[in-house]
Amino acid sequence: MFRPDRLAILAEGKLGLLTSKTAAVIIRYRPEQVACVIDSTRSGRTVGDVLGFGGTIPVVGSLEEAMKTAPDSLLMGIAPRGGALPPEWRRTVLSAIDNRLNVISGLHTLLGDDPEIAARARRSDVEIWDIRKPVIPEDVAQGRLRDKHGLVVLTVGSDCRSGKMTVAYELTRSLNDKGVDAEFVPTGQTGILLAGWGAVVDRLPGDFMSRVVEDLTVEALSRSAVAVVEGQGSLLHPAYSGVTLALMHGCYADAMILCHQPGKDEIEGYGISIPPLNGLKEIYEKACKPVFPSRVVAVALNTYELDEDAAAAAVAQAESEMGLPATDVVRFGCDRILEAIKEML
Amino acid sequence: MFRPDRLAILAEGKLGLLTSKTAAVIIRYRPEQVACVIDSTRSGRTVGDVLGFGGTIPVVGSLEEAMKTAPDSLLMGIAPRGGALPPEWRRTVLSAIDNRLNVISGLHTLLGDDPEIAARARRSDVEIWDIRKPVIPEDVAQGRLRDKHGLVVLTVGSDCRSGKMTVAYELTRSLNDKGVDAEFVPTGQTGILLAGWGAVVDRLPGDFMSRVVEDLTVEALSRSAVAVVEGQGSLLHPAYSGVTLALMHGCYADAMILCHQPGKDEIEGYGISIPPLNGLKEIYEKACKPVFPSRVVAVALNTYELDEDAAAAAVAQAESEMGLPATDVVRFGCDRILEAIKEML
Repeated sequence: MFRPDRLAILAEGKLGLLTSKTAAVIIRYRPEQVACVIDSTRSGRTVGDVLGFGGTIPVVGSLEEAMKTAPDSLLMGIAPRGGALPPEWRRTVLSAIDNRLNVISGLHTLLGDDPEIAARARRSDVEIWDIRKPVIPEDVAQGRLRDKHGLVVLTVGSDCRSGKMTVAYELTRSLNDKGVDAEFVPTGQTGILLAGWGAVVDRLPGDFMSRVVEDLTVEALSRSAVAVVEGQGSLLHPAYSGVTLALMHGCYADAMILCHQPGKDEIEGYGISIPPLNGLKEIYEKACKPVFPSRVVAVALNTYELDEDAAAAAVAQAESEMGLPATDVVRFGCDRILEAIKEML
Repeated sequence: MFRPDRLAILAEGKLGLLTSKTAAVIIRYRPEQVACVIDSTRSGRTVGDVLGFGGTIPVVGSLEEAMKTAPDSLLMGIAPRGGALPPEWRRTVLSAIDNRLNVISGLHTLLGDDPEIAARARRSDVEIWDIRKPVIPEDVAQGRLRDKHGLVVLTVGSDCRSGKMTVAYELTRSLNDKGVDAEFVPTGQTGILLAGWGAVVDRLPGDFMSRVVEDLTVEALSRSAVAVVEGQGSLLHPAYSGVTLALMHGCYADAMILCHQPGKDEIEGYGISIPPLNGLKEIYEKACKPVFPSRVVAVALNTYELDEDAAAAAVAQAESEMGLPATDVVRFGCDRILEAIKEML
């Protein structure tokens, strides 16, 4: 896989914290690699103005304008439900290729398998990096982590987009800052872009998901004392719960961090109630138990929709409800969670 | 997909109830379509002699001998862990193709994608049917079955190979015999071979498993009052639990039939204890609950390793332990389970 230096991020009509998750995360953690964002509905503004971070990175209205910021690659900045390439984006991808940009995509639809896109990429001598392209192992999970050395921490959530990737990534950085030898284990496209390794677990054939998680975790523990595994989906979400459980049973987590957006009480569009935090804790611990006992040791709230006071109140409320440390890792840092993890070392 | 008339079933070294599951099921339910079984370690015997059913179907030692029984297709009669083509079978597959047999395979490794096999198939003008070849839908699960009309029954198990497919298939036939308009929903290769439709759920990308189960179940309920969905794997098995949960949350089962092989108390090779039946019931019901309430309404034991008295005792024991109807559907029929299902209609 190539390492892009200057990304033009395509987020047409969708630049936002939740509507273009991949874009937002890369901008947050790798702003120096972002040349511009393409979103004609917000063109002329800065990313900092739209997202609240990302500073003076320009939002431009077209690929033509983007080329003036000297990008070397086009990153598909969204992960739409279902993952297909929106038809109106095809033209932009093709014209990026014609402008000699590499293309990085986490869409389910593999761009490298698209005859037109692949042919143009060959002609322009650029690379297509399909982050979701599955590499299928030769056997299923073996439970090799049962007697592991080292600690495995997994982020789990009440729903999709509850902050599992960000919490795992921030927690790893904080552990490293405190001198703990920890490694982030990416299981989705955005995490892979950040860390430069990993596997998109939800794109693997069902039978091999937990094996790949096992392999990634074994690899991380061969280098580091703590593996912080990025969780996916939610046990409550009927579309993704299988992926979530495969991750849980693949990594043999010793500890889970429960991620939740306060105020959210339903899986949107499915009419499924999200139980209170203690109920979620029980659901996750019970689902682990037959394979490997695991405990929810902390709560990570995603309070970006709340003001500072309401966020602090939500954190305090979660702590008293759960009798566990809670925080918003972006807003208040990881210290409270670190304590819980360090106790287990 | 073509419909084979006369199968030569390749089960080299493995003809047995559990070691060649696909072979055994096809022989049990479609003996008239089986020309012979290839297994040089049992050659010269009859299938009836080896399996206890299948009558005078010959077991032969080589493809050459198999050709004397006038097959039109070669069926790969095993589903090995991991699913790869055992190297020693490649030669047999190629020589079957040279003898103008179609090839039917449920291996994870798609034979049609193998350049050598594909080229030879073209040359011999025969078909390769890769039952596991995934067809990826355009979106993820939508929970369309939440307000369904009709009844959905799902088989779940303490482990792999606990009888989930057989129970679902037998139960459907028995319901039909009693005049109930029920349909079997195949989710694995063997079920698909029997029913002529379905999808191999464990081969789909994780994010689409439950969507495909939803689609299959919606389709069955558009034709029939009861959909009997074939379960996969087990919530206790770390390699397959994700597939199991995706199935559970995809089909919105009203009722579950718990399949178990008496005496088995561990997931072999993983050091995971199988809890007593009541514990299993609780695990399955709790995992359904956040998405859709479902009840275990009956127990289906797989008693093939027990003699008649021990089998009857195991069934009686399960009934008293659970306060639910129990049976071995192959040995004692489905009547006890039918009662439980018919009460829900």
